Formats: sequence, structure tokens, C-alpha cells
Amino acid sequence: MAIDKIGKLVKDCSLNWESYSPIPTENSSTIYQELAIPFPETALPVKDIEDKLQKLIAYSGYNGHPRFLAYITSSPDPVGVLATFLAAALNQNTNLWRIAPAATVIELQTIEWFKTIFKFPQQTEGVYSSGGQFANMIALSAARQYFCQDVREKGISQLGAKLRFYVSDQAHYCHRQALELLGLGTKALRIIPSDDNYRINLDLLTTAIKQDRETGAIPAVVIGTTGTVGCGAIDPISELAKIAKQEKLWFHIDGSYGALGILAEKAPSELHHINLGDSLVFDPHKWLYSPIDTAVTLVNHQGLLSQTFGNQVTYLEPSLSNQDSFDFVNLTPENSRPFRAIRVWLPLIARGINAFKESIENDFMLAKYMASLIDQHPSLELMTPTVTSIVCWRYLPTHQLTLERENLLHRRIIEEMAQRGIACISQALLHSNIICLRACFVNFRTTSDIVQEVVNKSAEIGQQIYEHEFIN
Amino acid sequence: MAIDKIGKLVKDCSLNWESYSPIPTENSSTIYQELAIPFPETALPVKDIEDKLQKLIAYSGYNGHPRFLAYITSSPDPVGVLATFLAAALNQNTNLWRIAPAATVIELQTIEWFKTIFKFPQQTEGVYSSGGQFANMIALSAARQYFCQDVREKGISQLGAKLRFYVSDQAHYCHRQALELLGLGTKALRIIPSDDNYRINLDLLTTAIKQDRETGAIPAVVIGTTGTVGCGAIDPISELAKIAKQEKLWFHIDGSYGALGILAEKAPSELHHINLGDSLVFDPHKWLYSPIDTAVTLVNHQGLLSQTFGNQVTYLEPSLSNQDSFDFVNLTPENSRPFRAIRVWLPLIARGINAFKESIENDFMLAKYMASLIDQHPSLELMTPTVTSIVCWRYLPTHQLTLERENLLHRRIIEEMAQRGIACISQALLHSNIICLRACFVNFRTTSDIVQEVVNKSAEIGQQIYEHEFIN
Repeated sequence: MAIDKIGKLVKDCSLNWESYSPIPTENSSTIYQELAIPFPETALPVKDIEDKLQKLIAYSGYNGHPRFLAYITSSPDPVGVLATFLAAALNQNTNLWRIAPAATVIELQTIEWFKTIFKFPQQTEGVYSSGGQFANMIALSAARQYFCQDVREKGISQLGAKLRFYVSDQAHYCHRQALELLGLGTKALRIIPSDDNYRINLDLLTTAIKQDRETGAIPAVVIGTTGTVGCGAIDPISELAKIAKQEKLWFHIDGSYGALGILAEKAPSELHHINLGDSLVFDPHKWLYSPIDTAVTLVNHQGLLSQTFGNQVTYLEPSLSNQDSFDFVNLTPENSRPFRAIRVWLPLIARGINAFKESIENDFMLAKYMASLIDQHPSLELMTPTVTSIVCWRYLPTHQLTLERENLLHRRIIEEMAQRGIACISQALLHSNIICLRACFVNFRTTSDIVQEVVNKSAEIGQQIYEHEFIN
Repeated sequence: MAIDKIGKLVKDCSLNWESYSPIPTENSSTIYQELAIPFPETALPVKDIEDKLQKLIAYSGYNGHPRFLAYITSSPDPVGVLATFLAAALNQNTNLWRIAPAATVIELQTIEWFKTIFKFPQQTEGVYSSGGQFANMIALSAARQYFCQDVREKGISQLGAKLRFYVSDQAHYCHRQALELLGLGTKALRIIPSDDNYRINLDLLTTAIKQDRETGAIPAVVIGTTGTVGCGAIDPISELAKIAKQEKLWFHIDGSYGALGILAEKAPSELHHINLGDSLVFDPHKWLYSPIDTAVTLVNHQGLLSQTFGNQVTYLEPSLSNQDSFDFVNLTPENSRPFRAIRVWLPLIARGINAFKESIENDFMLAKYMASLIDQHPSLELMTPTVTSIVCWRYLPTHQLTLERENLLHRRIIEEMAQRGIACISQALLHSNIICLRACFVNFRTTSDIVQEVVNKSAEIGQQIYEHEFIN
């Protein structure tokens, strides 16, 4: 198992994209079977290990593939991959300064850079975690702490049980899950319908807040999304900030996917109001093309993260000297913390932010290009505005089908596109329960030729499936 | 930033251990200053990047260094480092089968191997997370769900507010933190004093359970630790299991550090009762020498993890075919999940479990050897039984000091040992608030020569500091 051999495999899967399929097309039982290994008492022969590694590579999904457009999982920047390699060798646990000083400084450094990017005030504190889900949970924990200062001791008391959180029906399910985890329960969540552009309806939001106050509940947190998972919509951030201020709510922004779009020159203007948030979440493993898992939470309330998560534990005491050192363990519920910041730091110093701006702009451009092609296509229909880099569309069958049949048709198109190696796209659930085709661009390898092919093939395959499977 | 250059750096920090200090001895302001970089609009010159990387390496802690004995952060297995490199290149998000089939199969496969190792029943389900803290939170969430089936919707209701959790005063603070996070609050936690051997006092436990029942509370979960963070004590697992069964409690075992000690031939016998737990947590990044972050939760209640964390979300629906596929996203509150299992899988097939057995046995042996040397030393005192691979001892000054002064003396010894490059050791807080010296062995690079030197130098340095700083 020499470094050269793994290096060769890594190079191979980092560069020879077109030799793989965006997602494997073998069925699950084959994959189970081919990768099965009995409990390894002793080492496997080298040949067998190599064989299993080849299979592992063959049966992986290639989210860096130029034809992978399904989920907001970006193509990993090779510099970030090298950074992860170095981090694994250094094996820093970025919990305590004492055992990981350089990793701590670099995490702090990149947090400062992000404050510059988003124009967050100086007092803002931040911390890395595994993904948007965890990062949002950290932010909502801080918000819970803000309203219930005794929650760590007393749990969800009467006060806590009255808190209400507001979020659009287009938001990621992680907010619901965070409230479940935090013991507030989904009863604390008010899901506000979205408007025709899939943005939170402000009138319905203010009505809900008013109704809650009247019934004795305590409106606490409004969550805005910059880049919904469905169609990439951006909630009206400046308006939400106004409402939050007026109603004395915590304003949390889930920018897991879209927030870093602020880097693009023609970024949607709402992104420039992100600094109005009490907290913000964004994923460098999306729009900075870092390898998974690299998410960040910023909280614009000095000391609040430590109040939420800090612990005074003897075996984690700082040493007698270095009193200006800094221990990340106090800002998060993770004690074992891999050195995630290096996946941002090394690519940024090796490429400069401008390189990332260009890639993000390219993603915006590809989406706009795709939308225009769909718009012009006689048998396709564009289903949502293309605000960020997600495009939602559908194939129009010659004769109308029931909603259920039409939704099935679209799921079949998605499957067939993958089977034929055209592209891995996904589905989005739109208003009126319509399932449509969905492509998202967080990939610096996708070209406009591929986009053109995906559009045309979606119509062609749509028609074939419609004729073969839906007419009789 | 070529692969060869990073490969060279990785090789260097993976092999030339003795050329580094276990932890850097520069003060924090130097490290802040030397690593500072202004916001990088454009790429830094290659020379500057290399310079910063050299500094990053110089100012890192070396938990793989043979003289790093401070925290239970093990020396990373180079095969695990290579596995992490490959995983970063593949960039699998192990949330859905659809986009990460091989990674899903390998995670399932290693969970099966762990069930074999711990003799957990077939129905047991498991999932990886970042560290013991997160993994314990997952287990305690499942326990909360078990007792409060409506908790996801209703939050901590009256029933939930009555739940009580029992844990020894030697347990890791993560259990307290998990209850805070879960909205139960630390009021739900009964901290049971430990006996002279730092094991949970069973009489006090049963008394506390009885008292709680009398006052209308609901005893729910007892947590046993196999390998406390302080001195590596193992709670009486079989007795705890009996009490749990009798009292209808959930029995959770926090084996973050010690559980994998079961692999050693002369493992403490209590470890063989671990399969009596309803849930178990252990960290392959400790006693399987995997790189950070690699922790596992096992839960012996089929379907409970999905009940706790599962979500039905349209955009995460499985594809139409592959109905026997498996989506890990339903077993954990992480949606972005790096391919952690490969750090267990590749080392295990490349070395066989027997190689790990030997390393763990060696760790046990080093601890026993150290304990015997301390026992024989005229100016040192062994402070706790050496059950796993942690040794606690103190230097005996010629004349007795106040507790406060003596504790300060020991913290100075720890600092001085690091400054002189002898070893990075840590402190443990013992009964009667005594702070002692603490070494732990989760390192296949440490030798008995080093152990001997650490023992002798702790006495020598202790005497020097005592004479120079504590007599006048």
C-alpha cells in the first residue's frame, strides 16, 4: 500500500473524469456482492486489496464529473484534496490550541476572511463543522441560548416551549431536524408558504408572528434561505431583516448553498444584505469547491457560542503560558474536530479568491444558458426562475397525463439520463406537487456543450419514455 | 502545488517524527504572527505558499510522535492517511446510496465487522460520526426517542422533563453537553460519585434511582464508561447491565477510548460484557489508530435510529430501481457525511485485525511497565490503578506543600516536560481535587525506553522546579 499507488489512484479519479459514469449504473445487489469481504483476521493479499480498491472506485459517485448535476455537491478542488491529505497526516484535533496551534490559527484566519467576504462586523465569531445541517444546528442552538439563558441547566422550560421559529416551505429539512434535536419539537416551527417565485411570503410571515403573539407564544427566530435546495430561490433578505428587527427576532440565514455566490460580480443583490443576519451558515464544500465536509457558522453575538457550548473541564485546561491562545472546543459540540479549515486556506492562498469568483460566475452563466435553451425548446418548459445556479424544467408530453403519471414520467427520465450516461440530474418538488427535472451547477468542469446536450436529451428521452411506457 | 510536493511533506511529517517536537514550544503570539496572511485576492507566490506550509507543519502538534502521551489522540496509521486522501479525491457524500454506493456498502461492511468484534446482536444498527462527543449525542438521542416517541413533534414535554440519566463523576463531559443540546438540561443528569478505583459506585447509583422514582422522576438511562478520560477506569459493566435490566433503564456504554481494547488478548474482562449495552460508542480514531474524525455509534434496537433521525424528503428520495439500497442520511443528523469508514476499512484489509491487536496489547504493556517503574521510584507515587493504558502519578516533594501549591507544581512539571522535549503529558483531576501527571498510550511508536525516560525525568524535573520555584 505505497503512497505512489494511492497517488496514482487519486490522480486517476481526480483527472480522468470522462472514463467514469457520473453515478454507477450497476444494481445494488451487484455492488453489495462485489465489495463484500469477510471479517479480516489477517491482511488480504495485495492483489485482492487492489482489486477491491478498483471496485470501490468504479462504484463511487463522481460529483466532480462534468455531467454530475444532481445534488449541490460540488466538484472537489484538487488543491483541497491535497490539503485534506496533509491534514490527515498531521491528524490535528482542532479542539485545543495546546495540541493544534497552527490549525487553530488557520481556522481563525479563514473565519476572518469570511467576515471580510460577507461584511460581518468584527465581533462576529465562527466555527467549522461537517455540513450545513450541523452548522445550522449550531446557529439555532446559539439562538435558543440567546432566548433561554438557563436552557443548559433547566432544559426546555415553559419559556422555551413557547419559542417559535419561522421558515419558508422551501427551506431545507435540517431546520426541522435541528428543532427536533434541540428538544423544541416541530411544534415550534411555523412553515410559511412561499410565493410564486419560491420565496417566503412576507405577509403570511407577519400574520403568523402576530397570531403567535396573540396566543401567548414567543416569536423568536426567522430563517431566511439564500439558495433553496429545490430551485435555488433567495428569500427577500433585506425585508426579512427589517421584520426581524421590528419584531425583535433572531435573524438566521441559511446560505449553505448560495451565500458564497456573493463573490460573483453579478450576484443577486439580496446576497449583499447577508450581513444583516444574527447568524449565517454557508458551505465551502459547495461554492468554494472544498472536499466534504466543510461548513461554517458565523454568529454576530460575541461570546454567545461559548455560552452555548463552552465547558470548563480540568483535562482541557489551557497551559499556564499562552494565555492568549484560543480553544475551538468551546464554540461547538464537537470535541474531536478534524482540521477542516485547511481545505479553504490552501486553495485560497494557492489560487486567490478571484479564481473562485470566476468559477462561481461560470456556474451562474451555465444555469442562465440552460434556462434560455429550455425556454426556446418546443417540448420543454422552464418551471422556476433561475436566480442562482439551479434550473427546474419539465418535459411536455403531447397529451396531458394525470399529475401522478406525469411525475412518474419525470422520475423515469432522471433515471434514464443516468443510465445512458448523459447526466446525473435530480428532481424537485414544486408547488401543486409537480415533480420536475432539476440540474444544479457547482462544478467548474461542466461545459456549455454538456448543458446543451442535457437539455436536448431530456426532451428526446422524455418523448421516448412517454411513447413507450405511458401511451398504452 | 503538485501532488509530489504535498506527498513529500506528508511523508516527512508521517515518518520523521523525532525531527519535530511533540507540541510546538513557541509562544502563541509568534505563531499567530508567522501564519498571518491578508485576505488573498490573488494567488500567493509559490515560494510564500511553501514557506507558510513549512510553518504550518512546524507549529502543528504531533500526536503521532512517540513522545506524545497527553491526550487520547492516537498516532494515525499511515494506511488510514492514504485512505483519507483517496476519500477526499472521491469526495463521496455518504448520505445517499444513489450518489455514494460503494462508500455506503463499505460503511455497512465495517459496521458488520464491529458487531462481530463486540458480539452485538444481528439487529444492531450503526453509523459513523465525527467523534465520541457526536457519537454519544446520537446514542442519547436514540434513548430519548425510545422513552418519548413524540419528542420530535412535541419537544421536551412533561414526560421528557422527568427523564433522568445516570453517569459517574469520571465520565466525559460530552454526556452533560448532549443533554444540554437535547433540551433535557443538566438537571436531567445525576452524577454518581466514583469509588476508590474511579468506577461508578453501584450503591449510590441504586439509591439515586430509588430516590428519583420516589420524587416522581423517571429513571431512563445509565451510562457506563469503558476507559474514563482521567485514569482509564472501566465501570462495572456486567453489574450496570443487571441494574439497567432490573430497573428497565437504557444502558449506554461510552467506550470512546477503551472499548476497542477488547481486541487485546489480556483485555480487562469487563470489556467482554459490552454487548449488554443498548448502545455503544467507540472511536476508531483512538484505538484503531484511524485519522481524526472517525467515531461509531451502535444501537441494538432495530429501526430506532431511523425513527430518531429519518426524514422523508422529496429531493432525497431513492431512485425507482435499487430498492434494496440503503441511505445513511436516515440514521444521523448529518446530511453532509464524509466517507469516514474507508479509514477503518482500508487499514483493516491491508493489515488484518491481528496487527491492531498487537498494537493495542503493546499500549497496555507500556502502561503496565510505566506503572511498575513509578511504583519502584522513591520520589514518585502511582495514583490510580492502571486498568487500560493510562497512568496517573505524582512527584513527591521533600516537604509537603498545600494542595494548591502542589497542584501548581504538577502543572509546571507538565509544561517543563514539553518545553524540554521530553514528552507531552497531561494532567488528571483525582479525588480530593489532587492534580496529577497523566500519560496515555494509544501510540504504536512509543517505546519502553521513552517510558523509562519520562518516568525518570518527571522526578528529576519535579525536584528542580520544587527547589527553584517552591522552596523560597
